[in-house]
Amino acid sequence: MTGKKSMSIADAFWTWVDSPDTPMQVASLMIFRPAEPAVEFARRLVAAWSAYPATSRPFNYLTHPRPVPLPGTREVITDVDIDYHLRHSALHSPGGQRELGVLVSRLHSAPLDPRRPLWEMHVIEGLEDNRIAVYLKAHHSLFDGVAGIRLLAETFTTAPTAEFPPPPWARELPKRSPRRTVGRSLGQRVIDAVKVPRALSTFALGAVRRNDPLVGPFQAPPSALNAAIGPQRRISTAVLDLGEIRALARSSATTVNDIVLALCSTALRRYLADLGELPDVPLTAMCPVSVRAAGDDDGNAVSLILADLATNEQDPLERLAAISASTTAGKNHLQSLDAGVLSDYAILAGAPWLAKQIVPGASAVRPMFNLVISNVPGPRTALYAGDARMEEFYPMSLLSKNEALNITILSYDGKLNFGFTACRDVLPHVQDVAVYTVEALDELAEAIGEGALT
Amino acid sequence: MTGKKSMSIADAFWTWVDSPDTPMQVASLMIFRPAEPAVEFARRLVAAWSAYPATSRPFNYLTHPRPVPLPGTREVITDVDIDYHLRHSALHSPGGQRELGVLVSRLHSAPLDPRRPLWEMHVIEGLEDNRIAVYLKAHHSLFDGVAGIRLLAETFTTAPTAEFPPPPWARELPKRSPRRTVGRSLGQRVIDAVKVPRALSTFALGAVRRNDPLVGPFQAPPSALNAAIGPQRRISTAVLDLGEIRALARSSATTVNDIVLALCSTALRRYLADLGELPDVPLTAMCPVSVRAAGDDDGNAVSLILADLATNEQDPLERLAAISASTTAGKNHLQSLDAGVLSDYAILAGAPWLAKQIVPGASAVRPMFNLVISNVPGPRTALYAGDARMEEFYPMSLLSKNEALNITILSYDGKLNFGFTACRDVLPHVQDVAVYTVEALDELAEAIGEGALT
Repeated sequence: MTGKKSMSIADAFWTWVDSPDTPMQVASLMIFRPAEPAVEFARRLVAAWSAYPATSRPFNYLTHPRPVPLPGTREVITDVDIDYHLRHSALHSPGGQRELGVLVSRLHSAPLDPRRPLWEMHVIEGLEDNRIAVYLKAHHSLFDGVAGIRLLAETFTTAPTAEFPPPPWARELPKRSPRRTVGRSLGQRVIDAVKVPRALSTFALGAVRRNDPLVGPFQAPPSALNAAIGPQRRISTAVLDLGEIRALARSSATTVNDIVLALCSTALRRYLADLGELPDVPLTAMCPVSVRAAGDDDGNAVSLILADLATNEQDPLERLAAISASTTAGKNHLQSLDAGVLSDYAILAGAPWLAKQIVPGASAVRPMFNLVISNVPGPRTALYAGDARMEEFYPMSLLSKNEALNITILSYDGKLNFGFTACRDVLPHVQDVAVYTVEALDELAEAIGEGALT
Repeated sequence: MTGKKSMSIADAFWTWVDSPDTPMQVASLMIFRPAEPAVEFARRLVAAWSAYPATSRPFNYLTHPRPVPLPGTREVITDVDIDYHLRHSALHSPGGQRELGVLVSRLHSAPLDPRRPLWEMHVIEGLEDNRIAVYLKAHHSLFDGVAGIRLLAETFTTAPTAEFPPPPWARELPKRSPRRTVGRSLGQRVIDAVKVPRALSTFALGAVRRNDPLVGPFQAPPSALNAAIGPQRRISTAVLDLGEIRALARSSATTVNDIVLALCSTALRRYLADLGELPDVPLTAMCPVSVRAAGDDDGNAVSLILADLATNEQDPLERLAAISASTTAGKNHLQSLDAGVLSDYAILAGAPWLAKQIVPGASAVRPMFNLVISNVPGPRTALYAGDARMEEFYPMSLLSKNEALNITILSYDGKLNFGFTACRDVLPHVQDVAVYTVEALDELAEAIGEGALT
């Protein structure tokens, strides 16, 4: 693969909706605890990884976007300036969670340089308790969340090693999946698209038949989460025990994802009530769903469901029940679609949203949904960089026009790691949402416990 | 002063030529040595300065640019988010000159957020030998180099103090100079402009009458310094003793500025020869000249001369003589102009350059000059932040299209502090230019010493 190559529609989508206020960049933040002094570990890691040129896709892609609806092109380059992309940084004293949050918020706000491959890797020393952080940022057009996590899971090792593994930009590449290798031309995509309108009309009807738990676009109320946003981000994080959430899902005959949505719902309900801005109509969340074939880690392959967050329900069990009914309806609807059209379907189902992202002035209309809540499955067991165990693994996501908050959750080694990505100006106190999410677990556990007793 | 107010042409100029590849931001880097542990000093300084809202111009200006030739407007705002603009940062270990250079290069490459007042202040800990750095970045439309330095000189104190002084964004403002208070309407500016063409034609004739030491625009040769540039910067610094340079100027019957230009010339000659790209025709430098009235520290008030750098001369004394002849001719020419038109004159004399900055594709023509070398007078005695003495005080400047290097020199407390601002891609080894500049002083001192003996 050399020369310029056209991007898939699903990848190009992220170049179309990119803007100075809504840079389409996603990231992972990983915390490692080395055995040796952390400063020495960071120095060795940067030295080891600096030695590798960027030879693996998508880290050697130069992106040439084109205006919607034209997919841009990608060019494989051989002279990636690793000293630019791999950055050694430090927290100021005392190097606690607060200082890490401030630095990561700044890094996540900084735009990527469009003249270079659209990624940066930061090795951050100065974290208290002899730990270091690794922050990898990339443009969403390079890979979706599942592919990015898979890529990092393949970079690190599942047991301690004497030497550092090669960095993600110099991995041995897994084989492409048949779907991607064969590829689908734009023509085929258009043919697939004719299968979609029937599904789309079912979807849109959700806005009319309000007794159906299937949530449609534009059922979302206007809310404080849907104000105009600027380019600066605030990042907050939280960690919950996956075993505890799994047990709650079992007790309540729901899913881990439903419990996660219920916790987010409780936190948002409380945050908006603090502001005196809780809408009467329930918030809705867009939940991306991976439609990726096994072994395929290239580019974007995501569909979506819309979930009723039931933020109008006072009772936590009623809230959970309403959420569960809507996600079940959404998944059933998705399964009724032809597998081949799922990704295109997401684009088409998102067409009004896409239009709103791109057309100036379209932001005043009712939101298609209130926020994105994305639950990404991650590695089940611990990962290592050399002899240092990865203790925490947070996802950080992007914001779109009039969507001031994104919640992305990554499962890793028995924990759920929450990354809250917010517009600095609209949600200056996003840290409260993180705290409320943790506290929501106690409330829900108590309610489910009581419910189980009665 | 409230509401929106039109910018002066001289200030608006910097908004017109701003682009993603050429952000028009300038900066100062100051190194302090506190008595207490540097980490504690940094913490106290950030805490003290965080408490001050931004009440002083231009730190409370929101800039609304308009397309050339319309001057944009400025709005005074009262809710500047100091926690955004004042940033506590750290160097990674070992915190030497190299690590400081890397961090400052990154900070200087990062674009300012156009939705906020166009400045950032960074307090940087982790510098070796118990020192801290303070880096202030601002858009050039807020103030020129002289005004920025004056503003910092007024912020800090000339003797150690128990408490920190108020930050620059909360200073008591000096009175406006009569020139600025009275103001000049756009109409008056146009009237002034009719005096300029005669001077301009004299200036342009320099390109024809090559025996006249007055250097005109477009005498500059194409060079490796005039390649297309990207947005990433590399910063390098050097310090020389002002007393030694003053003595050399006396011995050679030239000026400090001539010696500085000769040192830069020697360094550039050697750097370009290293690359095998030394042009036969001498490089020329644009040297800004302040036309600021005493007590006026607002906005931009700068004219210019062009200097022959005589990089084609092998002999250092011949080089110095040619440089001196051209700067003398340039200054005589400037003095022949009406004082009131000097600033407008700079704009008009720069018109072809301005056109080149703004018109796409105009970059292929011969450069108007090869680089900017700006010698800014700074404080003569040491400054203090609380009890910490400022040991070094470096200027960092901006690059324009097809100008990959800027050299700005600031005199401070008996030293000349050189800031080399380069395009990362075009001049990856700008550090060599800094080293060569220091070594050039020995060569020139030896040559002048020998010359004085003969």
